[in-house]
Amino acid sequence: MTERFSVTYHVRSDAGSIEVRAQGIAVEQSVEMPLAAIDEPAVLSDIVGQVEQIDDLGGGLFAVRIGLALATVGDDPGQLLNMLFGNTSLHEDVILRDVALPERFRVRADGTPTLRRRLGVPRRPFTGSALKPQGLSSERLADLAERLARGGLDFIKDDHGLADQAYSPFAVRVPLIAEAVARAVRSTGLLTRYIPSLTGDLEQMRARARIAVDCGLDCMMVAPMIAGFSAVAALTRGFPDVTFFAHPAMGGAARIAPELLIGRLFPALGCGAVIFPTYGGRFGYSPATCRELVANARPALAVPAGGITLNRVTELLDFYGPDTMLLIGGNLLLAQERITEESAAFVGAVARHGDT
Amino acid sequence: MTERFSVTYHVRSDAGSIEVRAQGIAVEQSVEMPLAAIDEPAVLSDIVGQVEQIDDLGGGLFAVRIGLALATVGDDPGQLLNMLFGNTSLHEDVILRDVALPERFRVRADGTPTLRRRLGVPRRPFTGSALKPQGLSSERLADLAERLARGGLDFIKDDHGLADQAYSPFAVRVPLIAEAVARAVRSTGLLTRYIPSLTGDLEQMRARARIAVDCGLDCMMVAPMIAGFSAVAALTRGFPDVTFFAHPAMGGAARIAPELLIGRLFPALGCGAVIFPTYGGRFGYSPATCRELVANARPALAVPAGGITLNRVTELLDFYGPDTMLLIGGNLLLAQERITEESAAFVGAVARHGDT
Repeated sequence: MTERFSVTYHVRSDAGSIEVRAQGIAVEQSVEMPLAAIDEPAVLSDIVGQVEQIDDLGGGLFAVRIGLALATVGDDPGQLLNMLFGNTSLHEDVILRDVALPERFRVRADGTPTLRRRLGVPRRPFTGSALKPQGLSSERLADLAERLARGGLDFIKDDHGLADQAYSPFAVRVPLIAEAVARAVRSTGLLTRYIPSLTGDLEQMRARARIAVDCGLDCMMVAPMIAGFSAVAALTRGFPDVTFFAHPAMGGAARIAPELLIGRLFPALGCGAVIFPTYGGRFGYSPATCRELVANARPALAVPAGGITLNRVTELLDFYGPDTMLLIGGNLLLAQERITEESAAFVGAVARHGDT
Repeated sequence: MTERFSVTYHVRSDAGSIEVRAQGIAVEQSVEMPLAAIDEPAVLSDIVGQVEQIDDLGGGLFAVRIGLALATVGDDPGQLLNMLFGNTSLHEDVILRDVALPERFRVRADGTPTLRRRLGVPRRPFTGSALKPQGLSSERLADLAERLARGGLDFIKDDHGLADQAYSPFAVRVPLIAEAVARAVRSTGLLTRYIPSLTGDLEQMRARARIAVDCGLDCMMVAPMIAGFSAVAALTRGFPDVTFFAHPAMGGAARIAPELLIGRLFPALGCGAVIFPTYGGRFGYSPATCRELVANARPALAVPAGGITLNRVTELLDFYGPDTMLLIGGNLLLAQERITEESAAFVGAVARHGDT
């Protein structure tokens, strides 16, 4: 008997065609050829995908559950993604909706408890902001980081647009910002973390992670849909003491359900925290999507973001609960010269929520 | 003056909102924060994206052209993708439609002329097929490769599902198949190429490429949307004598126009040949999309695929012209014990087309 794992697709189809469509996906995501041309019985029985269930969701939408053979995936997360959705991603009427991840991909960073221990924050939600705009010099970004940190934020991350640009090269920017945050920490007594963004190929990401570790940093950010699943998994394995924050850039929400992509797959790559666009912000996820995404991702730390304003702290913490880091970027930066005070107001609002 | 390059998005919107939407994308893909919070004049003038043009395409669709600052990208192709579409990919009503690639990303492998020279095929289209189903042993895949090669095909590639699975590990499979094809080549006198598929992280892909080079191979396949743009660029730079075939897996056709993703971006990573789902096959690209994709990609070799049958050779070659490799996988394999003869018929049909 071959070991299989179940993958669920949502397919737009008419009822008369759905069985053929489902069988087509099962073949496309396994042997990718006419079954009539396969003369090896073991391939037909053990390798070809099997349609396990078809549910009519109404309105011309069907949930199709297919059992894929674990043997086709091996242990490479890139190959997992390939077998989950490689060719079928090219069909516009199919969404990859859910996966019962095989055991070997279920090892996850213990994001939330690790961060609570490191920062000495046992119960309340976390606060965070982002360093931007890109185009500022490393010195100006470091100054901004220090002012945010003096407001008492838990996390200050690189904007995901910050890479290794000439105006703030990684090797210059990261040590300066780490020092600036360390100065603020000595003054506030808090354990604020700076999260630099790692970009480039695996070698470049590793070299940058080493620079960050040398600066005493233990939190970093990476965008798995840009870096590649295999690269992120290799990176997280190589730095077991670092908590990796997954950024959703290139997440192409319409084709892989974010509940799955961000909620299940990014943590399976070893990311201990997942940043995602919250409902009610600049991007269009629904409250139901956000709720399921977060439930899937835990114990990774949930990091709702994307246009959050200070007046939504209570509402969002009521919704997400305490194992959350609220990330307010642009809307905090609007305070400009009052940035430290605005950060402190943010920190205070979150702290007060914890008291209630 | 900052150097900018133009990026075109297609946006679903009503006419009254399109200017605000366009400005929103320009900000999202550059500084990602309220402009009012930026106090550095150089960032406002040189870094923030600029809306250059808005065209009403009718039916609620608009083409929005935005000038992004080259300085935000640096020279990393992953960061290029990030700045082109990172966050905006999360908006379901926006498609990344085209890019005037900056000069530094315009270096391309000279795919077609290189392959013509190597295989001694000056004018006619190329032929190819794929090794599948996965689940077969390396020995059986090698046997299949030999029989296809004896039919006179130009290229025999790994199915994109073949990675490093237990039933046909890369280090076992590739030397066996390379030997089998070499045996056929000694018999046919043709210069048939075997194209193994590289998967995994950058280190694994490099190690596998070295195995393939040691087997005398000079063509390899990679899926940039799974491997990551930065990794593919590093790989192609490291093996300048290898022609890389880009596989469209995870290409998410609906969100990045395939004319751009496969036609422009994959060649910009150093891939000398691009495989894509042709019109009239299992996937839904239109003839117009295929025509533009191929025009964009050249001099990379165009490799239409995805359910091609032998009776379409004339039609497809009339459409794509001679700088093409026709890839017939599953439909050739249906011939089973007559696979060599069917391959020869395919080769003959392509050769005859060249004579007309």
